[in-house]
Amino acid sequence: MAVNLHIPAPELVFPVDGVEIGVTEAGIRKAGRRDLTVFRLAEGTSVAGVFTRNRFRAAPVQVCEEHLAQSLPIRAMVVNTGNANAGTGEPGLAAARATCDALAKLLGLDPRQVLPFSTGVILEPLPVDRIEAGLPAAVKALAPGNWTEAAHGIMTTDTLPKIVSSRANIGGHPITLTGISKGAGMIRPNMATMLGFLATDAAIAPALLKRMAGQVADVSFNRITVDGDTSTNDSFIIAATGRAGLRIESESDPLYPELLATLKAAATKLAQLIVRDAEGATKFMTIRVEDAGSQEEALKVAYSVAHSPLVKTAFYASDPNLGRILAAIGYAGIDDLDVGRVNLWLDDVWVAKNGGRNPDYREEDGQRVMKQAEIAVRISLGRGKVTETVYTCDFSHEYVSINADYRS
Amino acid sequence: MAVNLHIPAPELVFPVDGVEIGVTEAGIRKAGRRDLTVFRLAEGTSVAGVFTRNRFRAAPVQVCEEHLAQSLPIRAMVVNTGNANAGTGEPGLAAARATCDALAKLLGLDPRQVLPFSTGVILEPLPVDRIEAGLPAAVKALAPGNWTEAAHGIMTTDTLPKIVSSRANIGGHPITLTGISKGAGMIRPNMATMLGFLATDAAIAPALLKRMAGQVADVSFNRITVDGDTSTNDSFIIAATGRAGLRIESESDPLYPELLATLKAAATKLAQLIVRDAEGATKFMTIRVEDAGSQEEALKVAYSVAHSPLVKTAFYASDPNLGRILAAIGYAGIDDLDVGRVNLWLDDVWVAKNGGRNPDYREEDGQRVMKQAEIAVRISLGRGKVTETVYTCDFSHEYVSINADYRS
Repeated sequence: MAVNLHIPAPELVFPVDGVEIGVTEAGIRKAGRRDLTVFRLAEGTSVAGVFTRNRFRAAPVQVCEEHLAQSLPIRAMVVNTGNANAGTGEPGLAAARATCDALAKLLGLDPRQVLPFSTGVILEPLPVDRIEAGLPAAVKALAPGNWTEAAHGIMTTDTLPKIVSSRANIGGHPITLTGISKGAGMIRPNMATMLGFLATDAAIAPALLKRMAGQVADVSFNRITVDGDTSTNDSFIIAATGRAGLRIESESDPLYPELLATLKAAATKLAQLIVRDAEGATKFMTIRVEDAGSQEEALKVAYSVAHSPLVKTAFYASDPNLGRILAAIGYAGIDDLDVGRVNLWLDDVWVAKNGGRNPDYREEDGQRVMKQAEIAVRISLGRGKVTETVYTCDFSHEYVSINADYRS
Repeated sequence: MAVNLHIPAPELVFPVDGVEIGVTEAGIRKAGRRDLTVFRLAEGTSVAGVFTRNRFRAAPVQVCEEHLAQSLPIRAMVVNTGNANAGTGEPGLAAARATCDALAKLLGLDPRQVLPFSTGVILEPLPVDRIEAGLPAAVKALAPGNWTEAAHGIMTTDTLPKIVSSRANIGGHPITLTGISKGAGMIRPNMATMLGFLATDAAIAPALLKRMAGQVADVSFNRITVDGDTSTNDSFIIAATGRAGLRIESESDPLYPELLATLKAAATKLAQLIVRDAEGATKFMTIRVEDAGSQEEALKVAYSVAHSPLVKTAFYASDPNLGRILAAIGYAGIDDLDVGRVNLWLDDVWVAKNGGRNPDYREEDGQRVMKQAEIAVRISLGRGKVTETVYTCDFSHEYVSINADYRS
């Protein structure tokens, strides 16, 4: 059951000039399922990526990092579902490289110009033969309009495809941004991965795009959590094809801030779609920590609240259980926190004032907010000027059912 | 449903010479329920405590710390259930002090010689009048044999009372250790608290007992986790009455190591009873991290595994889902972890070898272990010589049901 997850109408999914997509059924794990997606990127495209910090990094993540670190431009990406190629050791690395080799050959590229992504079952060998057999059909299908196809093609146990698409006008230059993501919880049974791909036709210098990718991820894909479990395959990629008139070379460009904000907005929406489709989610929660002394402590508090099973089950029950939120703030690890300066709001309702129950707070007001499908939790720490926001969902019976199912 | 939680037969609960206990019904929250417990400690008793690190510390915790910091010896303790006196500000502190005053008056003590403990609903004013009215009956009931009564008297939503009792012979000196604890999850609906009381008739110098309390807590009450939520009231107290022949003044005493080990064993058993009675628990898991480079990193890994909802639901499902455990190790925050040196066992079954699936591992062996009610997860990091052990339980539908119930 997804929370307010809407799929844009086909006419509102705008192709990005310079990006072609082909999707096919390669029978990687199950027959009759779109499981292989190829992106071809036009010459001149800048590509940057942000990857999982899990030490058990999957083979494709390692190969992506290698290929992004070398100097040949990235010109293609290949995504398979059904198998995550994680926990597969040297054979896994060889399989990821073989996938790049095969696609490079078909597209006339150097294998180092290809980024590989895998998502699905972990600890099982990647069936490279099936990928190689499927690639020609995916390449044959390459066309600019296939974003919705791709959103379907990268799904594993997601209940719905996740797409954002928008047009913006930056300094008189119209640009297009379209992206897709997948993930439903961090690892479903043992399906590894959050993936996000965002493309724009703006031109962005490669070194700049690399810095921007980190900043964009830090307000979007690095600010969502379902259960605190970071998968082995998490990857987020931005591609800028340079086909539109907008060209940004450095942070000092006057149009840079608006472009960065536009990318952040698109990526945040894309990341939020994963939370909206999270396993068993019935509520979408925004946890905003204000007046923190540092980014680190703001995030400690935000994640402490977002990860607390007691807080999450209270939201599931629509129970404005103030004590659980305060307790989670209290054990977040800020040793010198003055609880007398802590304030808490649920949407517009001021629940806790100066560390205790707000005398004017009425249970029915909290109850009203808790019944909503979307709830903002706002916490002021009274320590400084830093604000951080994290997105999460509630914790339901359905979550346990989904994750306790024996791998099938 | 508790996991292997056995209540010792009455004849196996040994009184501790120098400790008298009285329990009564004070009607603090509900009528007809034992909710007020008094301990009187004989002259010469040493008392030490370890308390929650949650910044939202309850009023009784603050008063306990004050009273333990002054020089008059502690001679009594009072525990009420039904109300945690947490999140209650200055009036809460006054209420905790009033409770000490009332008991001190009845026992002819200075109020600073009394330690107060509260557990139950948080953010509601403590009904001191009812406690004051109930204290005379509790004092009248004081008797050495009332440990089982006390174990019942401090329960809130625990399904069973928690008691350990043993006799040991240390260097020819027979000593007795008896203790009780409460807690079922860290905070149930909004019932705050883990409490643990352990008494022995050994004589232990106060300054030494204080150091020992920290060491004992660090292998017992500080090594259990149900959901990662640390409550506002968590307290653990050791009292040593000095009535037995054993007298330990310092760490250099040759009998000290054995006494410390005996106290650790009793406290560990007592702490484990809380996990065994945890909300919805169907499995008891011991997470042992070996060959770590430091205590900090061993605990990071142990808690990362113990807190992962994906790992916990896999145990609930008796699913030997290796990938989830490896992923939790990988995101524990050890930046330079060489996953190629990580090994994993479920009981005697070697599951992951050098960071990947053990080639000799057979799914049915993992399955056999996962079906047990008690499971040891052993992780070797291959980085050093430090070992740490944490105790936890699985995550069931029942946990969500219990915690999603609206506060009643």
